[in-house]
Amino acid sequence: MRIVVLTGGIGGARFLLGVRAYAREVGAEVTAVVNVGDDLLLHGLKVCPDLDSVMYTLGGGADPERGWGRVGETWTVKSELAAYGAEPSWFGLGDKDIATHLVRTTMLNGGYPLSAVTQALATRWEPGLTLLPATDDRLETHVVVSDGDGQGQRAIHFQEWWVRHRADIPTHRFVFVGAESAKPAPGVLEAIAAADLVLIAPSNPVVSVAPILAVPGLREAVAGGPAPVVGISPIIGGTPVRGMADRCLAVLDVECSAAGVGRLYGGRRAGGLLDGWLVAPEDEGTRVPDVTVRAVPLRMTDEAATVAMVRAARELA
Amino acid sequence: MRIVVLTGGIGGARFLLGVRAYAREVGAEVTAVVNVGDDLLLHGLKVCPDLDSVMYTLGGGADPERGWGRVGETWTVKSELAAYGAEPSWFGLGDKDIATHLVRTTMLNGGYPLSAVTQALATRWEPGLTLLPATDDRLETHVVVSDGDGQGQRAIHFQEWWVRHRADIPTHRFVFVGAESAKPAPGVLEAIAAADLVLIAPSNPVVSVAPILAVPGLREAVAGGPAPVVGISPIIGGTPVRGMADRCLAVLDVECSAAGVGRLYGGRRAGGLLDGWLVAPEDEGTRVPDVTVRAVPLRMTDEAATVAMVRAARELA
Repeated sequence: MRIVVLTGGIGGARFLLGVRAYAREVGAEVTAVVNVGDDLLLHGLKVCPDLDSVMYTLGGGADPERGWGRVGETWTVKSELAAYGAEPSWFGLGDKDIATHLVRTTMLNGGYPLSAVTQALATRWEPGLTLLPATDDRLETHVVVSDGDGQGQRAIHFQEWWVRHRADIPTHRFVFVGAESAKPAPGVLEAIAAADLVLIAPSNPVVSVAPILAVPGLREAVAGGPAPVVGISPIIGGTPVRGMADRCLAVLDVECSAAGVGRLYGGRRAGGLLDGWLVAPEDEGTRVPDVTVRAVPLRMTDEAATVAMVRAARELA
Repeated sequence: MRIVVLTGGIGGARFLLGVRAYAREVGAEVTAVVNVGDDLLLHGLKVCPDLDSVMYTLGGGADPERGWGRVGETWTVKSELAAYGAEPSWFGLGDKDIATHLVRTTMLNGGYPLSAVTQALATRWEPGLTLLPATDDRLETHVVVSDGDGQGQRAIHFQEWWVRHRADIPTHRFVFVGAESAKPAPGVLEAIAAADLVLIAPSNPVVSVAPILAVPGLREAVAGGPAPVVGISPIIGGTPVRGMADRCLAVLDVECSAAGVGRLYGGRRAGGLLDGWLVAPEDEGTRVPDVTVRAVPLRMTDEAATVAMVRAARELA
């Protein structure tokens, strides 16, 4: 059995812990197709927050308290960069994390594609599944916001919007820069074509899953592929489980609810993606046209709870 | 009064502490022309060991115990790079130090020349004198050594020879790669032309001072300039004060003595550089053709001792 998961970073990483455990139970192979829209260059280093969150979490190196970055992290380089007045100062890179970015940047500058770099980094972390960036090409989520004086508009990198402005400035739309010419990374289309089940992790639909689907050919491969597609709602009782999906959905004028996100993905027979949609018991009764909806507990409080979610998704499929 | 110092890293940095103190006493301006032959790319970062040693030492940020790098340094990135198996592993970059290299590399990649980057970094460290790289161009000291089987030869970077092999492999010669097309950094020739005194720091003559003089036009500017040139011997009683100048001198078949190094620089009237040569009391009686030799204490045990050396050099001039 083969499972493909479309996923973002932190919540998706936790979800993958359950997918991996389930896969070990049933003898399945897992491929995670990971968002790269959050990636950015910081102080000359290529930083891939979602790939790293997944890698660190699956490799046992993530900080479970802070929710992102490395456990036991130190911040010497960050405070030194501040002493030089180096910008941007609003994105903090930890010392352990920086080593990852140094290795990645050196390999990228040496001509290796991001997928090969990811594989090389994973030899240390042994995530227990195949980690693929959605694309090896540059695809960055930018956010069109109101200009300082409110008269004009300007586009800023997603991380500047998210981390610096806490998504709390007048926002007009998201742009996936580079998407139109991006190609799926090697192995992505093959994994989707060979899959027995495609899962959409309970990640942010607007800035984690949408940039994956923005890679030409990728949405079509999922929607037109052989495997049933089941999504897990990142919204429980009208509130995002984590992150600021509410603010992202508001920009798209989509209701922040399990139903709203389910309809955003859409039913497969109606040109959307989903065959099944898992919602929380709080959202029992949610209806999405042409999609089978089932209510099961969706709090990923521990690995067993997450495995139960994956099992429910499999049964729904 | 204007003083120009040709200098390498660690020993030169300590010497500059004395030059700066002397200059404050007499109201002089100091320009340090610093060796770049040790510079290298490590994990994609441009590392300038001599410039940094000088900058950290004059800025009060150097580690006086270890003799190089930053005081209170931490090594998180280094151990993480090792966990990735990243090479080279024989050159350890500290976390604080890495911030310097990140800022420098980002600026260099942005098109700023090394001299401008050095000036920008110095706004934090306030070294109290003008720091100039000998050249903005790439000039790297490589070392021709015997190949593994002893049959052939190969060239390795100076740092590999020095740090990895502790200068302890069969060695044939030094090559200053890029020297023939290098130009003196902006301000270097002007400082030499306007100098009232040129000092050659007690740095390694073979791998610290020679790469500076290898920049076309620089040796000529010193030898043909208006200012008297006084060198300070890095060898006391036949032994290098620090470092492995003995191994470097052996490669050139030059005697490891105050006389040997003095003759290597040579008397100005005979086509060399020196008007005066300061040697230690242990080397009283040293003779260098066409050069005025004086014996004074040369141990830089504290700033006052170093100031006395500078004063003696000034008097000799």
